[in-house]
Amino acid sequence: MPERIFNFSPGPAVLPYSVLQEAAVDIVNFKGKGIGLIELSHRSKEFMAVADETEALIRELMGVPTNYKVLFLQGGASSQFFMVPMNLLQAGQKATYLNTGVWSKKAIKEAKLFGQVEVAYSSEETGFKRVPRDDEYTVAPDSEYLYFVSNNTIYGTQFPTMPNKEAMLIADMSSDILARPVDVSKFGLIFAGAQKNMGPAGVTVVIIRDDLLDRVGDKVPTMLKYKTHAEKDSMFNTPPCFSIYCVGLVMKWLKQVGGAAAMEKLNREKAALLYEMIDSTDFYRGHAEKDSRSTMNVPFNLPTKELEAKFIGEATAAGLDGLKGHRSVGGCRASIYNAFPKEGVEKLVSFMTDFAKNNG
Amino acid sequence: MPERIFNFSPGPAVLPYSVLQEAAVDIVNFKGKGIGLIELSHRSKEFMAVADETEALIRELMGVPTNYKVLFLQGGASSQFFMVPMNLLQAGQKATYLNTGVWSKKAIKEAKLFGQVEVAYSSEETGFKRVPRDDEYTVAPDSEYLYFVSNNTIYGTQFPTMPNKEAMLIADMSSDILARPVDVSKFGLIFAGAQKNMGPAGVTVVIIRDDLLDRVGDKVPTMLKYKTHAEKDSMFNTPPCFSIYCVGLVMKWLKQVGGAAAMEKLNREKAALLYEMIDSTDFYRGHAEKDSRSTMNVPFNLPTKELEAKFIGEATAAGLDGLKGHRSVGGCRASIYNAFPKEGVEKLVSFMTDFAKNNG
Repeated sequence: MPERIFNFSPGPAVLPYSVLQEAAVDIVNFKGKGIGLIELSHRSKEFMAVADETEALIRELMGVPTNYKVLFLQGGASSQFFMVPMNLLQAGQKATYLNTGVWSKKAIKEAKLFGQVEVAYSSEETGFKRVPRDDEYTVAPDSEYLYFVSNNTIYGTQFPTMPNKEAMLIADMSSDILARPVDVSKFGLIFAGAQKNMGPAGVTVVIIRDDLLDRVGDKVPTMLKYKTHAEKDSMFNTPPCFSIYCVGLVMKWLKQVGGAAAMEKLNREKAALLYEMIDSTDFYRGHAEKDSRSTMNVPFNLPTKELEAKFIGEATAAGLDGLKGHRSVGGCRASIYNAFPKEGVEKLVSFMTDFAKNNG
Repeated sequence: MPERIFNFSPGPAVLPYSVLQEAAVDIVNFKGKGIGLIELSHRSKEFMAVADETEALIRELMGVPTNYKVLFLQGGASSQFFMVPMNLLQAGQKATYLNTGVWSKKAIKEAKLFGQVEVAYSSEETGFKRVPRDDEYTVAPDSEYLYFVSNNTIYGTQFPTMPNKEAMLIADMSSDILARPVDVSKFGLIFAGAQKNMGPAGVTVVIIRDDLLDRVGDKVPTMLKYKTHAEKDSMFNTPPCFSIYCVGLVMKWLKQVGGAAAMEKLNREKAALLYEMIDSTDFYRGHAEKDSRSTMNVPFNLPTKELEAKFIGEATAAGLDGLKGHRSVGGCRASIYNAFPKEGVEKLVSFMTDFAKNNG
């Protein structure tokens, strides 16, 4: 096998190498049973055990209270943009949204199809460079929930702490779930597409407080009701078996390396290396404001577009892959999720130091 | 590796062994690039090439006309039950459904949320033992489409030929897509969950005539519009990359072994072996009526429940796995999709012969 590259992709993203190796064995012959993992009926005892264990590990690692369901759904986080209001917001009811990037904006658009949406804060006019402090917005008392995106992949911003408001929280944690401990009991619903911190694309994890399952109207299609999936332990129809299996492997790995608390420490260390590099020179400029900086995604610019193109080209050649920024911000972006090794961050910092010297 | 068992599971189901072997290599190190397949960004040139090739192979193998889109969606065939009427049926408009099993019944339930549903034929009262001939039902001229399930997994029935009616056809082909040549131009829309004849669970292939994309109302959430996915070549959001990749491998295998026409011949041979065995003795009784028999799923009963349990237990011990029938029919069921080897059918027939002798 050629050397493994460092993969800074924003998602699907790098996974622990041990996860890939175990999946490679099971995919051909699951636990020596003479049948491949992806050939197993979802109703087989083998696969049911995989799904049960995956759920149990998520519950343990996130400290999910017993009055919450953990669901494995399809359709990506993008489907949660409409499923949340479709299930939780009736016509005439109000919900509050914080507009801190592309993904919150898309969620706001879908919510407007179902109820009254109040955007209590927006950083759109200033390039989504920050997320709000609690004292920068209010939530109307008759609001059904407060919706926010905990980490903004494109702009590299992240809520340093979760909003502390008298409102039921709903969060899109796609890009920082399990990157730090979270008090799930403050939330009505948490969702995350798996392909950043949890596994491959193809499954979305939804954690929902069980009293919310009955809010949905009867005109909603069966497959779009959280209740349908909750009642059947995500086996109402064939689930995305392979993706669930991989999430299980990533959870096992995460438990081994110390869980969300250990990850938070490591993520802070990794991010600090990069931000210190960026702040140490005028050659690089970080996109996000300092008090909103993400530990997961670090977008930055160089003095010119030409230098950015050169930087990305040379980095790729040096085995530092996926550093091109999102088209809406431009420049470069290093995504350094849980499974991204510190060694790769150190290599990038060293590369950045040399590049600035040679081109500054 | 221990001997590979024969997997008669109704889905997720057996896949070509070469597909599993190739996936096992790519999952750790995709084409030697130092990055795992499931770590690749969906926007990387590597994955875009995978998706493009998979689509091209489906187009080639099914003879999809150029005025049709091929989409890779999530949510299973069950999500198509509501997406079809949500996109194609306006309030007050009429659609015709043929009720030939559990899956058509579920589709009928969802369609009623959106428009007027006419059930032109039902075999429910007689245990879903057959599908209708063209002369057994009529389609109202003002019907927007005629919806049917081409193969009924649970009851082992299959339309021997597609309905020949003055109506736009819409078919759930989840359990027999690519098992025989089909004239796609007769259809407005075809869909199939991948996990029977196309690959692993987690992706649903939708083939839709492009003039239908504009029928959808503007109150439909973005992710539920076929148009959204058609305009972005199924990359509006992160697609289920691994499942798409595997479908591509299965399509390559299918092309190598001769495509849908070769499959039809082989499927007929495999099914004939089983039906001849069943018909040769009173010990076994097939569920479906003879002119509706499926080449994909063969449900059958033994004289008593006790003998059925014994049969399944001894078969499993002999490496013939997944033969338990669906709870709504009981008894046994052999699912023998495209990738199921003829050798396994021969082994089952031989086992059935011996079992009848020893227990008859």
